[in-house]
Amino acid sequence: MSTNVANFNAGPAGLPRPALVQAAEELVDFESTGISIMEHSHRGKAYERVHNEAIELFRSLLGVPDSHEVLFLQGGASGMFALLPMNFLSDGGSADYVVTGTWSEKALEEASLIGTTKVAGNGANADGKFTRIPSQAELTLDPGAKYLHITSNNTIAGTQYRTFPKPPSANIPLVADMSSDILSKPIDVSKFGLIYAGAQKNLGPSGVTVVIASKDWIVQGSKRIPKIFRFATHAANNSLYHTPPTFGIYLMRNVLRWVRDQGGAAQMAKRNEDKAQALYAAIDGSHGFYTCPVEKDARSLMNVVFRLPSEDLEKNFAKEAEASGLIGLKGHRSVGGMRASIYNAVGRAEVDRLTSFMAEFQKQNS
Amino acid sequence: MSTNVANFNAGPAGLPRPALVQAAEELVDFESTGISIMEHSHRGKAYERVHNEAIELFRSLLGVPDSHEVLFLQGGASGMFALLPMNFLSDGGSADYVVTGTWSEKALEEASLIGTTKVAGNGANADGKFTRIPSQAELTLDPGAKYLHITSNNTIAGTQYRTFPKPPSANIPLVADMSSDILSKPIDVSKFGLIYAGAQKNLGPSGVTVVIASKDWIVQGSKRIPKIFRFATHAANNSLYHTPPTFGIYLMRNVLRWVRDQGGAAQMAKRNEDKAQALYAAIDGSHGFYTCPVEKDARSLMNVVFRLPSEDLEKNFAKEAEASGLIGLKGHRSVGGMRASIYNAVGRAEVDRLTSFMAEFQKQNS
Repeated sequence: MSTNVANFNAGPAGLPRPALVQAAEELVDFESTGISIMEHSHRGKAYERVHNEAIELFRSLLGVPDSHEVLFLQGGASGMFALLPMNFLSDGGSADYVVTGTWSEKALEEASLIGTTKVAGNGANADGKFTRIPSQAELTLDPGAKYLHITSNNTIAGTQYRTFPKPPSANIPLVADMSSDILSKPIDVSKFGLIYAGAQKNLGPSGVTVVIASKDWIVQGSKRIPKIFRFATHAANNSLYHTPPTFGIYLMRNVLRWVRDQGGAAQMAKRNEDKAQALYAAIDGSHGFYTCPVEKDARSLMNVVFRLPSEDLEKNFAKEAEASGLIGLKGHRSVGGMRASIYNAVGRAEVDRLTSFMAEFQKQNS
Repeated sequence: MSTNVANFNAGPAGLPRPALVQAAEELVDFESTGISIMEHSHRGKAYERVHNEAIELFRSLLGVPDSHEVLFLQGGASGMFALLPMNFLSDGGSADYVVTGTWSEKALEEASLIGTTKVAGNGANADGKFTRIPSQAELTLDPGAKYLHITSNNTIAGTQYRTFPKPPSANIPLVADMSSDILSKPIDVSKFGLIYAGAQKNLGPSGVTVVIASKDWIVQGSKRIPKIFRFATHAANNSLYHTPPTFGIYLMRNVLRWVRDQGGAAQMAKRNEDKAQALYAAIDGSHGFYTCPVEKDARSLMNVVFRLPSEDLEKNFAKEAEASGLIGLKGHRSVGGMRASIYNAVGRAEVDRLTSFMAEFQKQNS
């Protein structure tokens, strides 16, 4: 194994090494059962223990209150863009969406195919680029909305909420797509009606989708939609209504154990702040060679986006970085530039390698 | 690793050993890239090669014609129960369903929440038990149906189509849930408008859903449903519209390579017929100790169901079998009895172990 790769992929992203090593070691024979975890029945004892441990780890690591369910679904955040309005808008009403990037826009688009939506706020600057997070005061909130939807971290734009918006009344659930910053820091789950996240950034392999939802709310979801798309169906069946993605959930359990062993969400937050600070300091200290287009108080601790003086230099930067073992640094094809995704599994050592490379590249190209 | 386990699970089920061993060996470092296949971007070259190889293997192993797409989705067969009618019934019209077991019933239920459905045939006997497959002559087919839906193999009932029904006109697509017998034998894909299958029986781990669909048909799907639920969306994006379950698809590629190396679908059919014949012969030759409730011409080559003289004996059978390393033999909780699932990855040797155990158990308990 080459150990000199630093993985800055935006997702699927780098995973904690111990989680992978354990999976490799027991892939063919899980806990001396003679067969792989992926060959076990999802209704058998061996898998059931893994499934329930993953749920319990999630509950304890994020402090999920008894009022909320932890569900493991399929379909990714893109699937949830549709399921959310199917559950809560298909029988009527309107929902508020704050648009802070491409993924918020997609969530809004899907919802608009199902019911009535309103844009409660927009994070674009005068040029139409997503460089900020609208403040509470800037939002136009519908007092009769069925829910208020936000994207807590914007992987493409490199922006992130510092404090979450407050719906205009306690009856209106706040919903967050937390795909790219879930479990990167402690949050107060009780403030949310529903949180959803594709696993492939901070949690595990792609193909698993985590939903944390208010029990009281999801039972109010539409009964006219297919059973498989009702959150209540999965809640009533401990996420075993149909065959779940068992291996993905197993791998996520390994990752959650690693988070626990590292000290939990609070420790993740500390490390993530430290890593992001080091990287933004390198950008801000480059005398304008590297620039971050994002307003300072909206900068993401997960996805650090930056530009170089020219697109040619950006191309060379990506190429030379990759040759040095620093992979995944090209920005999203829709916006260009560079992006370093520094999720939980990326260590300070990798960030230091990147900042060293940046300093050296600047010296060579100034 | 205990090598004395014979896995008769109905799904998730046993997988070919070489597919798992390769996955274990390269789990942490895929093809000397220094990172796991599940840490690679779904838009990067390393994963793209795996993705396209899996699609190509599928095409060649099943002889998928150019008129049809091979798609890798999420949600399992249960998800497709909803997606199918959402695409083709939500703008009006009616669909025909042949009911041959629990899963057909579930497919029908979901479709009935979305549009108009008709039961074109039923495989229940006078006692309401699913012991047969209705013949073409028994079907009541709607000449104006949007599609005709069947379940090609019924895992719980242990029944399977020998020959597929013919829709009343060439304009009406035949749709089959082939979750539990796909790639177990050659089929003429051109006869189907759409085939879908959860991977966790013959193809790979749970969490991947394969759809083979007529290109001409799926572009006619509703444009009023969420984009993520349109088959056309995934067809237009080579199943990369959103992040696919990359590790599951990689593992499926390993399984497909194994099928190819074994001689392909025709060879699988030969082996499956041989295994099933051995097992049914053991049942039929037991002088009534073991009985199969399924009509002979409807017996499944994938899931062999049988009863013992009493439920107490069945309980002991399952317990003693498990102690001998024969696992997964309990019938589905909804019908009781025994069930041996003998998908592609189960070898004749495991079936011989089972029939030896059956003979010995009968001797001890007669």
